[in-house]
Amino acid sequence: MQEGYKGKAYDVLKKLNIDIGDLIEIKKGDLIVRGILLPSYSRDDRIIVIKLDNGYNIGISIENISEIKVLSKSLQKTTERESSKSAYKKTKSEIKIISTGGTIVSKVEYETGAVRPALSTEEIIQFLPEINEIADIDAEILFSILSENMKPEYWIKIARAVKDAFDKGNSGVVIAHGTDTMAYTASALAFSLQSLEGPVVLVGSQRSSDRPSSDSAINLLSSVLVAKHAPFGEVVVNMHAESSDTFTLVHRGVKVRKMHSSRRDAFQSINDKPLAKVLWKERKLTMLREDYITKKTETTLDAKFDERVFLLYYYPGLSRELIEQIISNTKIRGLIIAGTGLGHTSSEYVELFKKATKDGIFIGMTTQCLFGRVNMNVYTTGRQLLDAGVTPLEDMLPEVALVKLMWVLAHEQDLEKIRNMMTTNLVGEINPRHTLDLYPRWLYE
Amino acid sequence: MQEGYKGKAYDVLKKLNIDIGDLIEIKKGDLIVRGILLPSYSRDDRIIVIKLDNGYNIGISIENISEIKVLSKSLQKTTERESSKSAYKKTKSEIKIISTGGTIVSKVEYETGAVRPALSTEEIIQFLPEINEIADIDAEILFSILSENMKPEYWIKIARAVKDAFDKGNSGVVIAHGTDTMAYTASALAFSLQSLEGPVVLVGSQRSSDRPSSDSAINLLSSVLVAKHAPFGEVVVNMHAESSDTFTLVHRGVKVRKMHSSRRDAFQSINDKPLAKVLWKERKLTMLREDYITKKTETTLDAKFDERVFLLYYYPGLSRELIEQIISNTKIRGLIIAGTGLGHTSSEYVELFKKATKDGIFIGMTTQCLFGRVNMNVYTTGRQLLDAGVTPLEDMLPEVALVKLMWVLAHEQDLEKIRNMMTTNLVGEINPRHTLDLYPRWLYE
Repeated sequence: MQEGYKGKAYDVLKKLNIDIGDLIEIKKGDLIVRGILLPSYSRDDRIIVIKLDNGYNIGISIENISEIKVLSKSLQKTTERESSKSAYKKTKSEIKIISTGGTIVSKVEYETGAVRPALSTEEIIQFLPEINEIADIDAEILFSILSENMKPEYWIKIARAVKDAFDKGNSGVVIAHGTDTMAYTASALAFSLQSLEGPVVLVGSQRSSDRPSSDSAINLLSSVLVAKHAPFGEVVVNMHAESSDTFTLVHRGVKVRKMHSSRRDAFQSINDKPLAKVLWKERKLTMLREDYITKKTETTLDAKFDERVFLLYYYPGLSRELIEQIISNTKIRGLIIAGTGLGHTSSEYVELFKKATKDGIFIGMTTQCLFGRVNMNVYTTGRQLLDAGVTPLEDMLPEVALVKLMWVLAHEQDLEKIRNMMTTNLVGEINPRHTLDLYPRWLYE
Repeated sequence: MQEGYKGKAYDVLKKLNIDIGDLIEIKKGDLIVRGILLPSYSRDDRIIVIKLDNGYNIGISIENISEIKVLSKSLQKTTERESSKSAYKKTKSEIKIISTGGTIVSKVEYETGAVRPALSTEEIIQFLPEINEIADIDAEILFSILSENMKPEYWIKIARAVKDAFDKGNSGVVIAHGTDTMAYTASALAFSLQSLEGPVVLVGSQRSSDRPSSDSAINLLSSVLVAKHAPFGEVVVNMHAESSDTFTLVHRGVKVRKMHSSRRDAFQSINDKPLAKVLWKERKLTMLREDYITKKTETTLDAKFDERVFLLYYYPGLSRELIEQIISNTKIRGLIIAGTGLGHTSSEYVELFKKATKDGIFIGMTTQCLFGRVNMNVYTTGRQLLDAGVTPLEDMLPEVALVKLMWVLAHEQDLEKIRNMMTTNLVGEINPRHTLDLYPRWLYE
């Protein structure tokens, strides 16, 4: 079986009777490449894709290849793989993989070159057979969407699937998710599942699995390790930690943010230390902190969100009329401001905010700096905003504060109770103590 | 003269005939402190404030002091300082300091403990007499506002004052500014003053000058060095570079962002290397790049801004009706989206954006990741947004894109011309080539 291969590459593989999964060696000039033949997702029909020992996939043109030999045939023959489909419909497993879509389970469409999500549970496990060595895996495709299309109703479905997985006896859950909004989903799950029997690990990939530099395999493998071995009952994000491939970092779901549009180490903890580190080659999980949320005997589900909120990013020149319109002409119940510095907006809005909070609208202040804490007692404007009823939200990220507000508003009607919940540290979204090493370093070498 | 001192501290200073500016030595137990007596802004009447050799100010309680002696009297007696007021109204100077307010020129009010801006040009220069050794300084208080209250009409006034300063023969300009919106002002000035005879250096401080750990002195001193010696004609931000006090970094005004609410090294270049480094103790400016904008023979002023814009921060659950309302019920002419990842929003908005761009509204895409570049050709949603007329804005920061849009809209009416200007690299706001070292490192030691 030479899945996905066409044209010249197919002809060569067919002729030499090379199947997907075979360990092969290719000689091309001075270059010798050894690895496992993967299905092709390339539009170029001369390219064959090999998974190297270091976890990387590379694409090699079959042109000018001097020799290809099979070092060992795949143990998992096509027929076996076909029949194993049913094996994933398990009644009992250790770790459940819930796929929601995104690059980590994506393939490149032959025709358009566009990336599409995997279509079957088999495609997921087949993609990385080693994970079955770590734990007894069950996989489920909950839905297949690009994460920019994620919304609160899907958060609820994912939360239910997590609860269901623990109820069925799994000891950990891995959620494959697009990276764009993964941090938002992590927050939504953290507030919805405050008591957990085991780790809930969100994982994604910044480069699709057909690309040589894909982080899919390492991220998924290490996430299964975390789900199986981590001592906590928390929602976390596990992603590549640096531009080389040595380890991944496990970030608390309510303190993590996608900080780069394309790098594999895009996800970083903000105002917080990661919980753990995974050396994927050594299959080793090292805890970096001991103040994690422990596993509970029961998983509780409380997933409700009120979407009548707005995230207002403050900037000089922001029109007061526009804010007034957003607040009054719409039905919003809460506003999160990404203010400047220690938590400011122009003092021109003070009266407007005072009226809004009197009308029962919650207004919470975060900082667009992202790093550091809001402190509205230092400058006059901050004190005026406090007097107007604006609630300072400590070191919560704007996005986390927004998701928390959606969750809180679905549970409370009274403004004082909403304020109280918003400033209460529910699942580690507030870090009361910052150390100097939480701020990254810019090194220009 | 013992400005600001009251009660016990005043009595001691008066009795020993110690004046502001005197070099004194204090013995207290085993501790010996040597430095220059500063005016007091402490509410505690037992505290005297000393400026140490390393630039730090410290407050010491006069209680249990075993000895205070005067090592040398201030050369600048009260009467001289009083009379020197008029000396700052110069007809000819080398460097002009324009003060707009903010912490760098702030003092703590005795009564309330609140921070207020300096009230006179003398207060500014008196605060750091050493700057007169570097260059012939003229200072002007343009206005005294907290920078969260900054708005486009003030940007125009600052730009005019800069033009005026160069026209009067100054070779560099330093602008004292609050840190909250300093990066926005830097962008506004960069687009308004595209031809400059010398450096325009924005500087602020994260800790007011009465505080022991104030960065005011170092930042102001090194900014005067930059204004005097830098080879470029660019708008830059010069601020503390790391948590110790060794150097400051000079950031391109359109590539800098306040990344921390309180740290002194809050300002960092994003997707760009700083232009220069200043070792303030050694009075040494080192260029880190050679691709700066050179000095021109004439300074041109073109400061106009159209405020009919909005910065939309995308998140899952953002209501389509709300966006529709912002676009249609208001008179906005342009929208900057801080999208997810490579430049996405939910595909639900595609039709809405298509209609808006057809109606002549500019919609530009940036990434809320901040680091990295927008690339809307990778995923389906990105391509749909491109088809809808959304313009990808490379690696421009959302805030910079917003200020640029205000400037562009004030100059162009035609949507194609607006698009063209927004994607043209006017003053280095787009960095076409990213190197690995532009992304900071999170080091958990």
